[in-house]
Amino acid sequence: MTEDLSNKLVISVALVGSATTKEQNPAVPYTPEEFGVEAKKCFDAGASTVHIHARDKKTGWPTPDLDQIKAVIDNINEKAPEIIINITSSVGITLEQRVAPTQTFKPLIASLNTNSMNFSIGDFKTGKVVANADGVFRNTFLTIQTLAEAMKKAKTKPELEVYDFGGLYNILFLNKQEDLFEKPLHFQFVFGTLGGVPFSYQSLAGFLNLIPSGSSWSVCGVAKDQFRAGLCAAAMGGHIRVGLEDNIRVPSGRLAKGSWEQVEWAAKVAKLAGREVATPDETRKIFNLLQ
Amino acid sequence: MTEDLSNKLVISVALVGSATTKEQNPAVPYTPEEFGVEAKKCFDAGASTVHIHARDKKTGWPTPDLDQIKAVIDNINEKAPEIIINITSSVGITLEQRVAPTQTFKPLIASLNTNSMNFSIGDFKTGKVVANADGVFRNTFLTIQTLAEAMKKAKTKPELEVYDFGGLYNILFLNKQEDLFEKPLHFQFVFGTLGGVPFSYQSLAGFLNLIPSGSSWSVCGVAKDQFRAGLCAAAMGGHIRVGLEDNIRVPSGRLAKGSWEQVEWAAKVAKLAGREVATPDETRKIFNLLQ
Amino acid sequence: MTEDLSNKLVISVALVGSATTKEQNPAVPYTPEEFGVEAKKCFDAGASTVHIHARDKKTGWPTPDLDQIKAVIDNINEKAPEIIINITSSVGITLEQRVAPTQTFKPLIASLNTNSMNFSIGDFKTGKVVANADGVFRNTFLTIQTLAEAMKKAKTKPELEVYDFGGLYNILFLNKQEDLFEKPLHFQFVFGTLGGVPFSYQSLAGFLNLIPSGSSWSVCGVAKDQFRAGLCAAAMGGHIRVGLEDNIRVPSGRLAKGSWEQVEWAAKVAKLAGREVATPDETRKIFNLLQ
Amino acid sequence: MTEDLSNKLVISVALVGSATTKEQNPAVPYTPEEFGVEAKKCFDAGASTVHIHARDKKTGWPTPDLDQIKAVIDNINEKAPEIIINITSSVGITLEQRVAPTQTFKPLIASLNTNSMNFSIGDFKTGKVVANADGVFRNTFLTIQTLAEAMKKAKTKPELEVYDFGGLYNILFLNKQEDLFEKPLHFQFVFGTLGGVPFSYQSLAGFLNLIPSGSSWSVCGVAKDQFRAGLCAAAMGGHIRVGLEDNIRVPSGRLAKGSWEQVEWAAKVAKLAGREVATPDETRKIFNLLQ
Repeated sequence: MTEDLSNKLVISVALVGSATTKEQNPAVPYTPEEFGVEAKKCFDAGASTVHIHARDKKTGWPTPDLDQIKAVIDNINEKAPEIIINITSSVGITLEQRVAPTQTFKPLIASLNTNSMNFSIGDFKTGKVVANADGVFRNTFLTIQTLAEAMKKAKTKPELEVYDFGGLYNILFLNKQEDLFEKPLHFQFVFGTLGGVPFSYQSLAGFLNLIPSGSSWSVCGVAKDQFRAGLCAAAMGGHIRVGLEDNIRVPSGRLAKGSWEQVEWAAKVAKLAGREVATPDETRKIFNLLQ
Repeated sequence: MTEDLSNKLVISVALVGSATTKEQNPAVPYTPEEFGVEAKKCFDAGASTVHIHARDKKTGWPTPDLDQIKAVIDNINEKAPEIIINITSSVGITLEQRVAPTQTFKPLIASLNTNSMNFSIGDFKTGKVVANADGVFRNTFLTIQTLAEAMKKAKTKPELEVYDFGGLYNILFLNKQEDLFEKPLHFQFVFGTLGGVPFSYQSLAGFLNLIPSGSSWSVCGVAKDQFRAGLCAAAMGGHIRVGLEDNIRVPSGRLAKGSWEQVEWAAKVAKLAGREVATPDETRKIFNLLQ
Repeated sequence: MTEDLSNKLVISVALVGSATTKEQNPAVPYTPEEFGVEAKKCFDAGASTVHIHARDKKTGWPTPDLDQIKAVIDNINEKAPEIIINITSSVGITLEQRVAPTQTFKPLIASLNTNSMNFSIGDFKTGKVVANADGVFRNTFLTIQTLAEAMKKAKTKPELEVYDFGGLYNILFLNKQEDLFEKPLHFQFVFGTLGGVPFSYQSLAGFLNLIPSGSSWSVCGVAKDQFRAGLCAAAMGGHIRVGLEDNIRVPSGRLAKGSWEQVEWAAKVAKLAGREVATPDETRKIFNLLQ
Repeated sequence: MTEDLSNKLVISVALVGSATTKEQNPAVPYTPEEFGVEAKKCFDAGASTVHIHARDKKTGWPTPDLDQIKAVIDNINEKAPEIIINITSSVGITLEQRVAPTQTFKPLIASLNTNSMNFSIGDFKTGKVVANADGVFRNTFLTIQTLAEAMKKAKTKPELEVYDFGGLYNILFLNKQEDLFEKPLHFQFVFGTLGGVPFSYQSLAGFLNLIPSGSSWSVCGVAKDQFRAGLCAAAMGGHIRVGLEDNIRVPSGRLAKGSWEQVEWAAKVAKLAGREVATPDETRKIFNLLQ
């Protein structure tokens, strides 16, 4: 008899992304030690997976350096050995840099971005772009296919990150190749970046109408979309990612004391939705991890 | 300068409907005294409006008897004088019976059902109708128009209850009569009755795409749809109705100790959505009440 | 090897409904003879099914009289023997009257309305109801279940007429009874009645998102919605019903010379959509008729 | 009194894009002379605007060369002086190249692409990318803003080309700058590119729910989406672009004899939708052109 996990809610946490800095929120980790401490707090609060972008120890900038990534992984494994580590595949100038962490560390799960898109910072009140106005986040079909093949070989589950409908259709297209992705698929719907789509019932409904039956799905949202998307996902069987990568605040508007405070929020949301927080073992089954 | 109430969330509570009985949940009020006690507890927990269907003191059945309705109103006014009373217009065999409470008590707000529909009880696992298989909830255009005119005259705000898209289109049709409804309109979207639509992102998005700009809106849901609809509404600026009329349980699945326990739930949801619970005075403004 | 019929488009025609009169369009048939002549013209223009509501020979009013229905059937069979006859199950005061034509004539296909709803005539410019303001089109769960059982017994395919989302959900509910409907289901989406939903991309998309995979579907629309719905259905694999029951005009605005002129229109639409008009034999397969 | 143009349908035609070649369809124009001849045939068939990507006379490749663009414009103006010329802003390696035709020729209307995206050729049966697997169509915020400013200065109406929801949100964001775009906006929804979204009722409904009230809109679609999108747009008040840039065939599947044959198709669709084909003068008003 199969265990019924339909009422379990997975909380994932992204401690820091490519852009968030200590200037914005001092709880953002830069050093491997800080990653480990923050991961442990998040695990204690209910997170079963932790998504990492390593930072250069000196500059605080995102780095594709494998040694620095390894130091982060080791530190998390030491302090929170049960938590499932999810490594980004978005950092790096070259495709080789982007694929290397999967090949080297063979994580249980790794993000896989699904479309190329503008990726800028703007002021939503004035409509002015304030940073990276000429920036494109490149995720060509070659990128996606190469990462997917490497993940399959490494038995790494792709977390298919969907920022827009085109990205989801890109995956539906590639998924016609019978052997590129292990089924069922796992999606993460990302809301609120400038260049992608903001959270709306309609976009979430549209994504869910399109994904293959049996897929698992989670949401994350930038700034206030973190709360909007999380509440709505919890209500209807989805899973939640939180963390300072996406949002530096708590719902009241003040700075979060750490990503763990948003994990605590997600755990409360789960309870109000009548759901229980999934353990790492349950998460392995819910997301159909391959290891 | 206009007060910004956009971050306030109105909690409405329906203590008992036409169908819920003490056999299902002993906290369901039948006597005026019980209504008053329950209304006070709900007010203390954050509800600013209370929706009432009077019950016959002896049989417990819904009654259009004006004396019994008056006794309920008086008792609530005595124990929770600040709470806004919302009287149903759905009880009665004749149209006269349905319109009489509005004419007699001139409440600040009253429900106004927007479509005729099947109204049965069924087992959602087997697809069998178990009660009222030949039942129709009649809300003809004549009914709607007559109630709307009476409410306008009584300065009662219609709470336009939408169970299906046809009902919403009925109102959009009638609203072409320039003077039938005071603007802006106030809608309550009802999910999960057998005969209407269950909660889904898509239906809620569809309703919101159709209502006139500037309308206020709230959701209620039957059984688990109470939680689904409430979480999603809180996330995106809507308001919440809870209460034993719609659902006799709390999210964990046990019986609610009273409607007030669901009001407490809604207040927690509001907080997790970064919103504050509206007071009755704020509710008057948010719902554009006429008195 | 299965024949690929995916590019075929079925044209159904409804010669006259409950409401359309000769005063509105003199081509509306009342007598059996007129039904036969009109059916033949429609068949020649491409219709493979004809939907009939018999009319009293003297008054012109819709009639549940079995003799008069038989005369219509006989006349059509004589003049257009290949066309598939679809009998309404909506005419009659009692449930017995509504079920009798199915039991008596065992047609290949019969309409089955899926929800109770307001059914009035209104002026869409002023929002005034001009006729039948207190009217409800009753299709309770008892009605639907009784008709479905009779159709199953008669090997009559139910044409599940969906006027609103609640109606579609009613069928999804009843379809959990494993043996009530033969699979796959066949739906007809009806747009533009006052009381139901007007044609919109969103409503059609919503219906299609909900119906079971493998279902066949057709559209019909009242007045201009006949053209809107037909064009959109033809574009995306659906089938088309036309006829004076739904609309008395052609796209240019003048009165149709007969239902057959709208059938000609539908045949042109099919061609512009790159599809071929289905023959009655192909329609039997596409709609999964049981005889 | 304002002229009512709501029943007019604008047919635009794109004679050739960046990718279509004479090998695919010999009617594709390369030389200025061929552009002129084809434009005239399209005008005679009902097109009021012609969208052009100039081709290098020798190689047949798309070219940003201003002299060659001028030769195309001159030739069209000579042979079909009434037709409105719409110049692409997507051809060129540098932003200067992309903006130069607007600055130089000050066309009445010019395409303006709204998002960066993958732009590849694939086999929709196998899910294999067959060309340009590492290609990105760059339309950064800097690109969009620069083109918009140049168009405003040149009194050129931007035809805002929407391939995905993110692109539409990009425009809604930039449109908060009060003076970047003249209102009302004009959109062209593009369906069926690999990297964007295919035609669906839902995507078209979603786009229409998001655009500012009062905007004009047209659709175009790649391959069979040309017919799907066109039929659906005609049904609901939208306008149609056809042409060999998007699709080399007619609905029956054979090669089009020229873009004009698709214009003829669109004119027939307009008629079946009860609409009339707009003249260039009417198009100026419908699209709110600035000259």
